[in-house]
Formats: sequence, structure tokens, C-alpha cells
Amino acid sequence: MSKLRVHSFSMSIDGFAAGPHQSLDDPLGVGGQRVHEWVFASPSGRRMFGEDVPADEPDGIDDDFFARGVTNIGATIMGRNMFGPVRGAWPDLSWTGWWGDEPPYHHDVFVLTHHARPSLSMQGGTTFHFTADPIDLVLARAVEAADGADVRLGGGVSTVQQYLRAGLVDELHVAIAPTLLGEGERLFEGVSAAIAGYECTEFVSSALATHAVLTRRMS
Amino acid sequence: MSKLRVHSFSMSIDGFAAGPHQSLDDPLGVGGQRVHEWVFASPSGRRMFGEDVPADEPDGIDDDFFARGVTNIGATIMGRNMFGPVRGAWPDLSWTGWWGDEPPYHHDVFVLTHHARPSLSMQGGTTFHFTADPIDLVLARAVEAADGADVRLGGGVSTVQQYLRAGLVDELHVAIAPTLLGEGERLFEGVSAAIAGYECTEFVSSALATHAVLTRRMS
Repeated sequence: MSKLRVHSFSMSIDGFAAGPHQSLDDPLGVGGQRVHEWVFASPSGRRMFGEDVPADEPDGIDDDFFARGVTNIGATIMGRNMFGPVRGAWPDLSWTGWWGDEPPYHHDVFVLTHHARPSLSMQGGTTFHFTADPIDLVLARAVEAADGADVRLGGGVSTVQQYLRAGLVDELHVAIAPTLLGEGERLFEGVSAAIAGYECTEFVSSALATHAVLTRRMS
Repeated sequence: MSKLRVHSFSMSIDGFAAGPHQSLDDPLGVGGQRVHEWVFASPSGRRMFGEDVPADEPDGIDDDFFARGVTNIGATIMGRNMFGPVRGAWPDLSWTGWWGDEPPYHHDVFVLTHHARPSLSMQGGTTFHFTADPIDLVLARAVEAADGADVRLGGGVSTVQQYLRAGLVDELHVAIAPTLLGEGERLFEGVSAAIAGYECTEFVSSALATHAVLTRRMS
């Protein structure tokens, strides 16, 4: 059965997954890039950002965790703020995501939004679907699109919280980075009841992140 | 000059330093013991709890961080809830702390409380002073008592937050444990402005904790 998995959800020591004031210049909010340094520094991450990293460069812990997030994933769900900085009704259809002409998904991506727009097919096999359906229905559509593979829940904070509260997340990988944000959005806010259903099943660290895997208990 | 240092301040992955419902049976709140497992398992911690640990038992990362908290400390400041579960006015003077006849401090300990009571001298050189003075004044008294050594700020959460907001904490060691509490008291709540004055200067992990040292920036 397909799982719903969250990967590489980075946060600061003080618990913020994104900084305040998200904008075109600061897709992750002010200071939000700092919690993702472990990604930018890993061979997998650098390849994703277009760097020509030699195949024999040794992988590390960070690389391993980053790579898990793109393994056996057949569809992605994300919130509208992860798709872009536009708020409210779409002024036009010119915004096509943060990722350029060829987004790194290569499968169907379901974007949660109250503002309808036509599906958007990009180079490399990524198609963005915009939907106001209830989150469990979106998950059902994503599972179907994934065709036997798992579904990745991308973010941001509010989207992950909604799925956590609904008890629909099977696995959640958080990366705690050696930095402080002071303010922003907390992942673990308003999810107390849901958290009781999870346990920490992995806990390993590199110099740039502590990786914790939270797994839903068998019920 | 004496520093004010916080050590071994443990919290869960979801950011809670103590569980809810502190009581005589649960000094750290329900589930709060779990975030301190790295202490209970370390040779230093086991010795503190009275176990006869062989001198040649190898120390690890956790032991090193635990030991730092008792090195070059000449006085301690703690909140009233760290001293005991009694709330409001003291019904009598029978409560003398969680630690038995010989507390592990061996120096002057200043307990912040609005409810006066006489100083209390225990075996082994620990004297508890109860004070309603402003926190900066308490720090000045503790520095004097420490006689050139540093002052340790013990806890709990609210006490550390007060000193953080006042900009009086020089160094803060937090230990993030591989567990989830779901609810309780957050260390990093209501301290956004203060946190901007700190940076993470150490970040190392064992299987039972990620240790982060936050140091006040030079101003």
C-alpha cells in the first residue's frame, strides 16, 4: 500500500521550519535557507541544483537522507505557498513554480489551493494539478497517480500539519540544523494530539543536521 | 568575569523541555524523564544518582556534556518549581528539595520565589536561599557567592526564559532527545528577540542526544 511520506523537513534548534516574510527573494522566509544548508552541501542536493558533482564523490549521512526523499515516490502533494509567493486569486497564469522549466519532480504534483487554475505540464514529466478538494481526497488522487509508489508530502508547515492532524502521514523525516531563527513557522504547533501517534525510529547526525525519522505507530 | 551558564537543558524533538502536570511523582512533568535519558545513561549521571560506576568506564559525548555543567560552577540559580512541587505559600518548611539530605550542588543555590522562607543549609555544603529579588540582583548575589567561578542557571523553563529575555545568559547548552512529548513547556517560546543575540557554536550528537551550545554574540 502506498505510504504518505514527509522528507527533509528542516528546522532550526528553536523549532522553526521556515523563517518569517516569505517572498520571491526568500522562498523559505528570511533566514530559512540556513536550515537547509545540509541539503545544499550534499552531493545529491548539489546535483539537484545543477552542479556537476563527480560520481565518485563520497556520500554522507545528509546525502543518504536527501536521497531517500526522491526514492520510490510517484506523486507529490504540496501547499500553495510551496508552489509560489502569489497569495489570493491568481492575477494571471505566468507563475509556474520556483523550479524553472523543468521541475525536479518528474511526476504529478497536487497543489492545495482554493483558487482554481488549469493543470500545468512542465518539461521532464512534472504536471501541477491545482485542487480545492479535501486533503484526504487529494491523497487518494495522488495515490492513484503514484501507481504503486509512495506519495511525498512536500510542505510547507501548514500543509504537513493538516495531514498530521488527519492522521494521514506514515513517516516524517525532520532535520534539525545548527542554527536559530527566532521566529517563523513551527512544524510542531497545534499537533499535540497527533504526535502521540508517532515515535522516533531513527536519530542520526552529521555536522550540519540531526536527522530524526518519526513513524506512525501501528494501530 | 563570571559567566551565567545553562547546561544539560534537555528537550524533545518537538521542542518541549518538560512534560505537562509536574508533581511529586513526575518532577519533570509527564514524560519529561524521557528527554533526560542521555543523562541517566552516562557514567557521570549514574554516579550522581549514586551508582558505583568503575573509574575506568569510558566516557562518551553525553558524559562530557554532563560533566561540563558541574565544572567551575560556584553557585546555582533555579526557579521555585525546580526546587519542588509546592505551589503558592509554603504550608510548612518540611519540603527541602528533590535531592535528599545531601543535594549535588555543594554551593549556594538561589531559589526564585515570591514566598519568603529562611535559608536552608544541607549536608555537603549546599545552602538554599529563597529570594524575591529582581533576577539581575539575584545574579549579582550568585556571582559574589561563586567567588570567581561561574554561575549555573538551573531551570526550569520559565526561569531560563526570564534570564534569556534580560540578556543575562552567556551560554546555553540544550540537548535534543530522540523522543516526542506532544505538549508541555517550550524553552524557545517568547524569546524571539533574545535569540537573535545567540549563535550555535557547537553541535554534536550521541545516540541519545544532539548537543547544541548556544553562545551569546560579542556585542
